[in-house]
Amino acid sequence: MPQDVRFDLPFTTPVSGHLHSAREQHLRWVWEMGLVRSEAAFEEYQSWDLPQAAIRTYPYANAEDMVVLMNWFSLAFLFDDQFDAARPDRADRVAEVARELIATPLRPVGSKPRVECPITVAWAQVWERLAEGMSLAWRSRFAASWGRFLVAHTEEVDLAARGGHLGLEEYVGFRRRTVGIHHSIDAGERARRFEVPAQAQAHPVLIGLRDAAADAIGFMNDVHSFEREKRRGDGHNLITVLHRDRGHSLADAEAEAIRMTNERLADYLEFEARIPEMCEELGLSYEDRRRVDMGVEAAQHWINGNYEWALTTGRYAAVKESAAATAELQGRGSLDDLLTV
Amino acid sequence: MPQDVRFDLPFTTPVSGHLHSAREQHLRWVWEMGLVRSEAAFEEYQSWDLPQAAIRTYPYANAEDMVVLMNWFSLAFLFDDQFDAARPDRADRVAEVARELIATPLRPVGSKPRVECPITVAWAQVWERLAEGMSLAWRSRFAASWGRFLVAHTEEVDLAARGGHLGLEEYVGFRRRTVGIHHSIDAGERARRFEVPAQAQAHPVLIGLRDAAADAIGFMNDVHSFEREKRRGDGHNLITVLHRDRGHSLADAEAEAIRMTNERLADYLEFEARIPEMCEELGLSYEDRRRVDMGVEAAQHWINGNYEWALTTGRYAAVKESAAATAELQGRGSLDDLLTV
Repeated sequence: MPQDVRFDLPFTTPVSGHLHSAREQHLRWVWEMGLVRSEAAFEEYQSWDLPQAAIRTYPYANAEDMVVLMNWFSLAFLFDDQFDAARPDRADRVAEVARELIATPLRPVGSKPRVECPITVAWAQVWERLAEGMSLAWRSRFAASWGRFLVAHTEEVDLAARGGHLGLEEYVGFRRRTVGIHHSIDAGERARRFEVPAQAQAHPVLIGLRDAAADAIGFMNDVHSFEREKRRGDGHNLITVLHRDRGHSLADAEAEAIRMTNERLADYLEFEARIPEMCEELGLSYEDRRRVDMGVEAAQHWINGNYEWALTTGRYAAVKESAAATAELQGRGSLDDLLTV
Repeated sequence: MPQDVRFDLPFTTPVSGHLHSAREQHLRWVWEMGLVRSEAAFEEYQSWDLPQAAIRTYPYANAEDMVVLMNWFSLAFLFDDQFDAARPDRADRVAEVARELIATPLRPVGSKPRVECPITVAWAQVWERLAEGMSLAWRSRFAASWGRFLVAHTEEVDLAARGGHLGLEEYVGFRRRTVGIHHSIDAGERARRFEVPAQAQAHPVLIGLRDAAADAIGFMNDVHSFEREKRRGDGHNLITVLHRDRGHSLADAEAEAIRMTNERLADYLEFEARIPEMCEELGLSYEDRRRVDMGVEAAQHWINGNYEWALTTGRYAAVKESAAATAELQGRGSLDDLLTV
């Protein structure tokens, strides 16, 4: 039962109190924006309980911003499911929408999408709020992180469409790009209204820390979502790759995936320990050191918050009897088509 | 005769000695990559003399890199002309290719294009060389600058397709994005093998300096390319906008465009004068200050280099009797279609 696998995480992190009112506004928005188009899809979406992820990964966001962050989660997760294994021709449309999502943060704020569908319209609206008050440097960094994630998503869809498989080494690099953690941590700055100094962000220690966090979260997520991905016939999962590429039994593959997760968590902690030395080397002021620390906390919020959410979300449930589960077993990515007007 | 208009530029900049061998290799590449598909288009392309721009805008590039930079110029300029006023439906394809060009620097180096045509294939190859040895911070910054330019290009094409016009104020902001100077200056770091420290790049003085350089070059370019754009029926030119939006005669509009250029050049110099104070404020080391100075020089190379090239390039010639000029008068953007395989 991989969704139950516990990890011993080395820190505790706060949880926002803005759950209830934000969730209510958020669910209304999801429906109004056409991000769910059927009752069954709405029921499935609610079972994922993304608001629980948002209050843990962005604990310092104010009440209004919390709604925006939940809204963002919805379109990102819903887009993630828009590929149908049963319809490989759909890969081109997924790729087209992905490129449009990449372009949005590069346009003047308030621009209309150039490729129209519920996902792109929702993202243009969310981006307008996410960009608010952020520097050019942050916007460029976010746009690049977000773009790398979306091109990797297309790569994943293309691979699935032609039934291709990755070896372990290739998969590890690929997973770091598909997990989408870099832009998620970037958004932590917006959520808490600060920015990590640019020279710290460009330093190998912080780059290594972010990569280690991304790997640890990606591997953990592969463990927790294994049953869902098996049901969907999705082979892009560390357990599946270890089983197929290394000839491990599923139980051994799971154990190895857990070991690899813990290894990257240990690496993460080593990078954390080197932060004061990095700040010293860069000659940062007290205020800038505090901003670096808040940047590190943003990574911690994601490591812990995503973990806590994954243990209970209906998205990863092993046993599931719903319209969504039936669709998944039939090779359909989602109940609703969100890539057309 | 706007192409003859002289500006009194406040600095001199070096010119690379790598013209001849680089140009020869470059022209062979342009033909082999299918960036020109007819003899007439090749003749027109050669008349633009982009290698003269490359040796001035990137004077410190080594011989091999100079070829790469010329190759880059070719695909960017040729893509710029792919919209046909006579075929507004082509705007969608231009936009699709632009989004693909945005995605390229976000993919792992060496990836194949997802939307295939001579322009995207050429860019994937050039990007592989441009990315070489550059940091994550530089690659993110370049990708964002390049992406902003390309979404603005699409905005321009869409505006042309529906016959829309911009007022002066709107045009000035728009021109800063369509001129494509930010990524061109970013590339100066790759060409000279250095990087501007991230904290300096994020500082308002350097942001202001880059914007002033972009505006000055964009306005100057509008003066020099006026005859070409008139022939093409392209209304996105400062002289045209001043004429239409402010009711100036063409002669007065030209004089006003020249005044606006000089004003932004003066702003540029004011930002330059504030660089030492910025370095002091940031507590930069001697080496980092040198890197900032080289970043400023990269902007100077573009201001001067682009100017010197514009005075003589066949691209902006007022009087022109060629297949390309005939095509332009018929509202066709270019002789060859480069957006299909």
